[in-house]
Amino acid sequence: NSGNVVALHEFTDILVFLLHADPNMVNAGDMNGSGNLMDFLDEPFPDVGTYEDFHTIDWLREKSRDTDRHRKITSKSKESIWEFIKSLLDAWSGWVVMLLIGLLAGTLAGVIDLAVDWMTDLKEGVCLSAFWYSHEQCCWTSNETTFDDRDKCPQWQKWSELLVSQSEGASAYILNYFLYIMWALCFAFLAVSLVRVFAPYACGSGIPEIKTILSGFIIRGYLGKWTLLIKTVTLVLVVSSGLSLGKEGPLVHVACCCGNFFSSLFSKYSKNEGKRREVLSAAAAAGVSVAFGAPIGGVLFSLEEVSYYFPLKTLWRSFFAALVAAFTLRSINPFGNSRLVLFYVEYHTPWYMAELFPFILLGVFGGLWGTLFIRCNIAWCRRRKTTRLGKYPVLEVIVITAITAIIAYPNPYTRRSTSELISELFNDCGALESSQLCDYINDPNMTRPVDDIPDRPAGPGVYTAMWQLALALVFKIVITIFTFGMKIPSGLFIPSMAVGAMAGRMVGIGVEQLAYHHHDWIIFRNWCRPGADCVTPGLYAMVGAAACLGGVTRMTVSLVVIMFELTGGLEYIVPLMAAAVTSKWVADAFGKEGIYEAHIHLNGYPFLDVKDEFTHRTLATDVMRPRRGEAPLSVLTQDSMTVEDVETLIKETDYNGFPVVVSKDSERLIGFAQRRELILAIKNARQRQDGVVSNSIVYFTEDPPELPPNSPHPLKLRRILNLSPFTVTDHTPMETVVDIFRKLGLRQCLVTRSGRLLGIITKKDVLRHMAQMANQDPESIMFN
Amino acid sequence: NSGNVVALHEFTDILVFLLHADPNMVNAGDMNGSGNLMDFLDEPFPDVGTYEDFHTIDWLREKSRDTDRHRKITSKSKESIWEFIKSLLDAWSGWVVMLLIGLLAGTLAGVIDLAVDWMTDLKEGVCLSAFWYSHEQCCWTSNETTFDDRDKCPQWQKWSELLVSQSEGASAYILNYFLYIMWALCFAFLAVSLVRVFAPYACGSGIPEIKTILSGFIIRGYLGKWTLLIKTVTLVLVVSSGLSLGKEGPLVHVACCCGNFFSSLFSKYSKNEGKRREVLSAAAAAGVSVAFGAPIGGVLFSLEEVSYYFPLKTLWRSFFAALVAAFTLRSINPFGNSRLVLFYVEYHTPWYMAELFPFILLGVFGGLWGTLFIRCNIAWCRRRKTTRLGKYPVLEVIVITAITAIIAYPNPYTRRSTSELISELFNDCGALESSQLCDYINDPNMTRPVDDIPDRPAGPGVYTAMWQLALALVFKIVITIFTFGMKIPSGLFIPSMAVGAMAGRMVGIGVEQLAYHHHDWIIFRNWCRPGADCVTPGLYAMVGAAACLGGVTRMTVSLVVIMFELTGGLEYIVPLMAAAVTSKWVADAFGKEGIYEAHIHLNGYPFLDVKDEFTHRTLATDVMRPRRGEAPLSVLTQDSMTVEDVETLIKETDYNGFPVVVSKDSERLIGFAQRRELILAIKNARQRQDGVVSNSIVYFTEDPPELPPNSPHPLKLRRILNLSPFTVTDHTPMETVVDIFRKLGLRQCLVTRSGRLLGIITKKDVLRHMAQMANQDPESIMFN
Repeated sequence: NSGNVVALHEFTDILVFLLHADPNMVNAGDMNGSGNLMDFLDEPFPDVGTYEDFHTIDWLREKSRDTDRHRKITSKSKESIWEFIKSLLDAWSGWVVMLLIGLLAGTLAGVIDLAVDWMTDLKEGVCLSAFWYSHEQCCWTSNETTFDDRDKCPQWQKWSELLVSQSEGASAYILNYFLYIMWALCFAFLAVSLVRVFAPYACGSGIPEIKTILSGFIIRGYLGKWTLLIKTVTLVLVVSSGLSLGKEGPLVHVACCCGNFFSSLFSKYSKNEGKRREVLSAAAAAGVSVAFGAPIGGVLFSLEEVSYYFPLKTLWRSFFAALVAAFTLRSINPFGNSRLVLFYVEYHTPWYMAELFPFILLGVFGGLWGTLFIRCNIAWCRRRKTTRLGKYPVLEVIVITAITAIIAYPNPYTRRSTSELISELFNDCGALESSQLCDYINDPNMTRPVDDIPDRPAGPGVYTAMWQLALALVFKIVITIFTFGMKIPSGLFIPSMAVGAMAGRMVGIGVEQLAYHHHDWIIFRNWCRPGADCVTPGLYAMVGAAACLGGVTRMTVSLVVIMFELTGGLEYIVPLMAAAVTSKWVADAFGKEGIYEAHIHLNGYPFLDVKDEFTHRTLATDVMRPRRGEAPLSVLTQDSMTVEDVETLIKETDYNGFPVVVSKDSERLIGFAQRRELILAIKNARQRQDGVVSNSIVYFTEDPPELPPNSPHPLKLRRILNLSPFTVTDHTPMETVVDIFRKLGLRQCLVTRSGRLLGIITKKDVLRHMAQMANQDPESIMFN
Repeated sequence: NSGNVVALHEFTDILVFLLHADPNMVNAGDMNGSGNLMDFLDEPFPDVGTYEDFHTIDWLREKSRDTDRHRKITSKSKESIWEFIKSLLDAWSGWVVMLLIGLLAGTLAGVIDLAVDWMTDLKEGVCLSAFWYSHEQCCWTSNETTFDDRDKCPQWQKWSELLVSQSEGASAYILNYFLYIMWALCFAFLAVSLVRVFAPYACGSGIPEIKTILSGFIIRGYLGKWTLLIKTVTLVLVVSSGLSLGKEGPLVHVACCCGNFFSSLFSKYSKNEGKRREVLSAAAAAGVSVAFGAPIGGVLFSLEEVSYYFPLKTLWRSFFAALVAAFTLRSINPFGNSRLVLFYVEYHTPWYMAELFPFILLGVFGGLWGTLFIRCNIAWCRRRKTTRLGKYPVLEVIVITAITAIIAYPNPYTRRSTSELISELFNDCGALESSQLCDYINDPNMTRPVDDIPDRPAGPGVYTAMWQLALALVFKIVITIFTFGMKIPSGLFIPSMAVGAMAGRMVGIGVEQLAYHHHDWIIFRNWCRPGADCVTPGLYAMVGAAACLGGVTRMTVSLVVIMFELTGGLEYIVPLMAAAVTSKWVADAFGKEGIYEAHIHLNGYPFLDVKDEFTHRTLATDVMRPRRGEAPLSVLTQDSMTVEDVETLIKETDYNGFPVVVSKDSERLIGFAQRRELILAIKNARQRQDGVVSNSIVYFTEDPPELPPNSPHPLKLRRILNLSPFTVTDHTPMETVVDIFRKLGLRQCLVTRSGRLLGIITKKDVLRHMAQMANQDPESIMFN
């Protein structure tokens, strides 16, 4: 039957597609992977007048277009009441978009949290009373749960209990182990397949690309509806699969997709790439806000880490979006505790000056971890890009998932979800804590209030926990390097924090035991008398987490503010800040790039970092094209080229625009004409205007001169001429040029001397020059 | 005896000087008032190469100078270990400056708080056990104080008790009343005299000037050591005198003075006006941090409200400075409660959706108050500037102080210090509260936990308090308008917050009583059952305070964050935000300017606001000088002017620099020469170079041509020529020009067409054009 054969053939095709990526994709990096299958689902093809894919926008032009639009609306609004109402709606649309983004981002974050909870537990067992309940929900709704053993209830059955009616013993363990791995593989395969087939842009954390997009780059479809949908679904799958990754970074991407979606509903934002980026900045803030439950930290993250052009109006709206998102998430209440924040901690004892030393040590650890992670991860990702490894993305995910699941299951600290682990490590040991980490030997003679438990000697549970934590730490460090960058959604906030929290908790317990057993040492004598509660290991875990996160991302203020919002007290801000500063200094000593900048670099995006300082002594003349010995610049003359000449020039070159000069001899600059607009104008003129033929003269002057009677009709193009192109002189220092490109968001800049055109500098030229000056490969900058 | 006569004469002179300002000063506004007495104490005269007083700096030039310096240090650091250590010290100096600023600002704030406490109480009485104790400290240290009557103790004596041994009765009241007024007058007179004699710049809140300075303007001495000293001392005096003003704004000025002082210790900052402003931005953050105990809010305030150029590196350092300042203040512990924040509040009940309506009403009130205040205050200040009123600043202060004291004393809500009043209004009525505002009628049958007191009917005390609050509100509104802008340090955060808190508390009590008496109304039925604690009047006070502060200053995010740091919970952020948004919208509907911008405008400072949008369609050609019909631009030619010609040009004009063109005929631009550097170069050449005489030709070209044998020696000036002056074409839209001026911090910009020089646009021209377009008087912009 031929139908079946066709179906089978199609299935094989998809399988082949999944397992063997087309070589084209691997060579061109992450960019050309959208495949043919998806064309019909893609975003609509852009209008003429907008930018091409993988090109840089001109911020000044976008801004002036928006001002024009605004002027038009303002002048129209005086005409009729209807127009007045329309102008009011236009003015309010910014707030409406923010509200919608906040609502959707909060809702999606809540849904993701709930789904991850359920699916993570699904790997171990199922709730009989209602299969859609997670372990915790299952036992909370059960009446047969006792307070002491909240985690055990008859409704919740491990797979071994359900399948072979056996909950203990080696065979049950092996069955559970096997099923755990199977579920993990299943989730991971589903996730990577969905990403490969429907939305290749849904992979990774998305933050490097969002930074690039916000700096004024076009990646069509990166923030599309399909990416939103697939990223949300696959994020749940990969987090549940137990891979060493977090959902925080991808949530920023998801929120930005929401932002892009809602901005496409309002012409104010959909038709202006500059205004759209204001919305996206706010959406990024909403994303971090729901990821950590930290609205102020989210706004600062967007300001410090992600955004490029961040006017103060956006600050206020971002804050609004972040708050709406946070409150939407809270009303969904996925953690079941009415808390806004991801890790709620409350410590009862202050910290002491002497503790700054271990805190700074943790900062050093965080910096070293950041350096190690960035170097190894980038090396591995480069290997993936350049060797045959990149051809098997599905296989890679499956292998890493299998390794993760196999190694993670036996160790209780890696088996559970990473956020739960961090939460446990952050917590102080209260009187009711049943965790192994709180297995201290109690002094039976002492009765004290619950909140004020003195330092005690560690029991055997703590020692076991220390070993397990050490093993988990090594495993996490290694596996995270290989996990981040695979073709699945993957954030690294949570793995980084986990590494830091584990190291911090171990250091904390060490210091605590040292202080208990040697409280007569000079360093302890002043602040740690016997029977006092002086060391809080949970605080060390938190400081370590901040240090490691800082080392990897190089966040500063936003990091401290996010952590401050988690603890809610200014008391602990000094340790956090000490660790964050140390971590950044140590990591910066080995290399200035954070992980996101490193990935931007790896992918060759044209990102002009505002934080980098350009301190070399080069001049514009050293950077401009044409270089010495190169062919002269392709220019148009104001009144001596024919239509055919112009068409030939357009055909032979692929520049985005051409400078217009008085004549080839004088080379005095009069303006700049965009390629797109030239093509359109000539096409229109040939179709509609009589007498415009190939040897018509093209005039850019105000009034074309009187022509001899039988010459062809001239083509006047002054209206498409930009009469105020941005120029610098050849003696301008490059640091000024870089500053101008950064602050004004230019795409190109013409170089003149006393009005004579000498050359052109594009953003790509600037970036290549900067790479060259930093002894990097200038060819790594791929896009213009 | 002639010595006595001279002394008497001098005394009279000073008295005359104090009571009658010299007319010169009044006419020229606040600017020329530094007087002759102070010249010897002023800052040292600036070097050549720096900027003149009341001139605008060129940010691009400052930046490139700093890069040069940095390059020099980096290249030197490889030479020897000593140079390497010096380069390290240079790199660290930023953090050291921040640390010092934090320490000094925190200390000063603590000292001011303690001194204000003591001197405010001094108006009413004195502590016999130690006269330097404030009322509270006096009674806390006393053993005879009972818990119920914490305010009464034998050591604390009212003046009437001390002087006539009478504490009650009409005559005691009148004596206390009289002494209260006398003390207030005494403090105010001392303050205004100190300001007039030693540091005229110490008056006002300082924030408008700091905004202008940070945007790149030079006001020498405004942040000097004398200003610091006098402002600190007089701030204590005026706050203690009971005038309707706060110390929060002036504290920002004080912190900026500290910043300026410490930056003068490091050549990195003292010699570069751009870098110095980075330090000042951070100092402003530290100032707000200590004013409210809100470090994050302080940083955001600096970012949103004060700063102009705020690189991310500064964000991180500002945060550090703000934290150090906050913790220094806390270790001084002026409020005696180990709290970091100025008004610590804790509410026990949530707010309900229906309450948003009164909150938004409070927002409307705040917006209206903001508008009213700004309009009336500016009108009054303009009157002061233009009429004879301004000639009697001391008299004005004394009259206002007398009126304030006379009216304030009888009303308990105006007699006490404004911060105490706000603190009481913010507080929830707990079970132990003895305030008149908490005089509710208790149900004797009900025993309830302390924290959860249900809504109760108001007792007579509450009704009295309502009347007194209403009177206090009207008084505060009127007197604040006349107080802000006098020649004494005066902030308006606290008076604005007081106005809002009084209005808010009254609304809150109203809603509470409405809900209690009419709990069957539809709007109350859902959330306010009898016996429930549903309305918190303190929260209304806080919302009102935020609304009024927002209406006056137009702060947004920083306002909400400061308030959030006061309450410490995200719970109440939504009401605060609703009120802040409404208040800003309402106020903006009547005029876009906040109080600081209005004062900047009034004083004619050249401040190019980043928040204003320029949306007109004018072109550079409409703004540039010379206008049509004006004399042509004063230019230098590259090789045809003699030294004498140049000197004449310099003498006849007062421009800051001159464009250099090829020749008067072709007018093709080749560069720009600074006036200062021209003068210096010619002076040097005449002194040192042989053969340079008045008819030597000045050459700006690379190689002067061969000269005839007996012509005078030429003067080569290419090295002082700026070969990369900033140019735009005459067709450039003004919105782009404004954007360029703002973002690059230019001082002037040349206008060309195809390389031919047409004119020049200075920052002043841009500001005048903007004023003209907004239908304001362009002549109000006074400085360049």
